[in-house]
Amino acid sequence: MQALPTYDDVVAAAGRIEGHAHRTPVLTSATLDAQLGAKVFFKAENFQRMGAFKFRGAFNALSRFSPEQKKAGVLTFSSGNHAQAIALSAKLLGIAATIIMPQDAPAAKLAATKGYGGKVVLYDRYSEGRDDIGSRLQRETGATLIPPFDHPDIIAGQGTAAKELFEEAGELDALFVCLGGGGLLAGSALAAKALSPRCEVYGVEPEAGDDGRQSFAKGSIVTIATPRTIADGAQTPALGELTFGIIKRDVRDILAVSDTELVKAMRFYAERMKIVVEPTGCLSIAGARQIAGDLAGKRVGVIISGGNVDLARFAELVSEGG
Amino acid sequence: MQALPTYDDVVAAAGRIEGHAHRTPVLTSATLDAQLGAKVFFKAENFQRMGAFKFRGAFNALSRFSPEQKKAGVLTFSSGNHAQAIALSAKLLGIAATIIMPQDAPAAKLAATKGYGGKVVLYDRYSEGRDDIGSRLQRETGATLIPPFDHPDIIAGQGTAAKELFEEAGELDALFVCLGGGGLLAGSALAAKALSPRCEVYGVEPEAGDDGRQSFAKGSIVTIATPRTIADGAQTPALGELTFGIIKRDVRDILAVSDTELVKAMRFYAERMKIVVEPTGCLSIAGARQIAGDLAGKRVGVIISGGNVDLARFAELVSEGG
Repeated sequence: MQALPTYDDVVAAAGRIEGHAHRTPVLTSATLDAQLGAKVFFKAENFQRMGAFKFRGAFNALSRFSPEQKKAGVLTFSSGNHAQAIALSAKLLGIAATIIMPQDAPAAKLAATKGYGGKVVLYDRYSEGRDDIGSRLQRETGATLIPPFDHPDIIAGQGTAAKELFEEAGELDALFVCLGGGGLLAGSALAAKALSPRCEVYGVEPEAGDDGRQSFAKGSIVTIATPRTIADGAQTPALGELTFGIIKRDVRDILAVSDTELVKAMRFYAERMKIVVEPTGCLSIAGARQIAGDLAGKRVGVIISGGNVDLARFAELVSEGG
Repeated sequence: MQALPTYDDVVAAAGRIEGHAHRTPVLTSATLDAQLGAKVFFKAENFQRMGAFKFRGAFNALSRFSPEQKKAGVLTFSSGNHAQAIALSAKLLGIAATIIMPQDAPAAKLAATKGYGGKVVLYDRYSEGRDDIGSRLQRETGATLIPPFDHPDIIAGQGTAAKELFEEAGELDALFVCLGGGGLLAGSALAAKALSPRCEVYGVEPEAGDDGRQSFAKGSIVTIATPRTIADGAQTPALGELTFGIIKRDVRDILAVSDTELVKAMRFYAERMKIVVEPTGCLSIAGARQIAGDLAGKRVGVIISGGNVDLARFAELVSEGG
C-alpha cells in the first residue's frame, strides 16, 4: 500500500488551491445552538466552486501534473460531483478531461459536466465493463486516472475544508463529516489531529449503505451492494485503502442515519439557515443530531459537503409533510 | 419635516448593532460574472438574524430607548419582517413588544412573531382602523411606536448592510437595492455616498407597485393601492417622507421588474448559489439584469434583503417551469 498522506500534504494542498478554490464561509445558527445546547460551526462547502468540496481535491491533484501529464490529459469515472470537479479543474489548468459515465446517468449531470468543458464517454453498464473502457482510454491517450477518493492528493485537498474551519472557528470538541468513499472524512481527520488534537471526528453515512460502520467495527474494508438512498454522493460500495487507513486510525466513530433524517435536515437548512444543501450534505448534521445528548456545552463542527441537487427534486423533498 | 439622517448616524448604528446583528457574508458567482461581464458582490442579508436586514434597523432603534421608554415598551404595525425584527430585538433588549397585525395575516407570520416573544394584537381590517388601535394602545401603555421604515434610526440601521459591503468589497460602480418603503434604499445611499461616492445606487421595486418610480419621476410622493405581487416585502403604497428625501437626493434611478423575473432570480439563487431568497430579496438582482448592458466591466453590489419565504411556497415557485 502507498504511504498515507499526512497533514503536511493538506498544508501543501491549501497552498495550491489558494486563489482558485473559494474560502467558503463558516455559518452559525442560534436556533440550532439553542436546540442542542451547543455551539455549532457549519463549513458551507455548498458555496464551493461547482457546488461541492470535491473541487478542492480535484484541483489539488491536477495542479501537481507534470507537463507530460498535462499534455496527455486526465481521466476519471464518476457520475457525480467528482466528475464536475475534475472537468472544471482541468479547464482552469488547461488540461483535457475525459469523464467515463454510465449511459443512464441523469441528463442534468451529463450537461453540468459537459458545461465545465469535460469530454464525456458513455458506456452501457449492462454490456461493457467500465474498467475495460478506462484501461483502453488510458492506453490510447496516456491520460492519468484520478479516482474520486482513494488518492493521496484527493484526500489532502479535501482536508483543506476542515483546516479552514479550525482556523476560523478555533479548536472544536467534535467534528461531523459525511462518509461515502472517505476522502473528505480522511482529510478532515488529518486536519483535526494537527489543529485540534482533542477533537473527536465522526463519519456519517446513510443507514442503507453502512459499509463504513461495518468496516470500522470489523477493522477491514467491507464491500456492500450499491445502497438505495437519497444521499447519492454516499452510494459507494466500499471505502478505499488509503481513506480507510486514516479513518481506522484517526476517527472516533461512524454513525448511520435514515433518509427521513436527511430530509428533515434539508428542510432545516432551507427554512432556518436559508441554504440549499444536497441530501449527502445533510448527513453530517443528521449525525450530530443523533448523538445530541453527548454534545451539550460543546463546540461542534459540521461540514456541509455540497448543494448540487436538482431544483425540482429539492422542491419535492422539502415539500414532503410540509 | 425631521432632519434627514446622515452617514454619521449609520456609523453610530453600526456601533450599536455590533455583536448583536450578524456581519453577513459577501458572496460571489463566477457564473453570473461571466453572464454579465461584470464583477458582482452579493450582500447576503438572508443570513441576518430573523432572516432579513430588518433586524439592523429595529435593533438600532430599540437600543436608543431611554429607561422610561424601555419600561413602557415598543409598538409597531407590521405583518412582515419588521414585526419579527422588532419582536426579536425587543426580546434581546428586555423590552415588551406589541405588534398590531391584521386578523387575516398568515399563520406562519403570526407564529414567527410570537415565537420571538412579541405580543400580537389582531384587528379586523374591515371593521376597525389600525391607527385607532395603535393610538389607543399608545395612550394606554405609553409605548413608543417604531414604524417599519420612515424613522431616522431605522434608516440608519438599515444602512449598515451597505456599509459592511463597501468595507469588504471596496468601492463599487453600481449598487442595487430593493425598494418597498425605502428604509434599506435610503440607508444604502447614505453609505454609498460616504464610502464609494461615484457609485450609482438603484432602487428596484415590483412593476405592479411602482410608486417609487412614479414618485422619483414626479419629485413628490405618489400613493398607490396595495399592489399585487409576490414581493410581499414591497407591497407598500407609498414611500416615507424621510426615505424619499434621501432617495430623491442620492439615488440614481428606480427600476421596476416583473414577478416572472423574481421567480427566475429565485431559481438562479437556489440552483447556482445554493441560497434561499424570498421574492422581495430577488428584486435587486432582477434590476441589475434589466440594465445589464450598462454594467459590463463594472463592479456591482447587490443587496439580498432576506430569505423568509414559506418553504412550501418556495418549492412551488422554484418548480414552476422547472
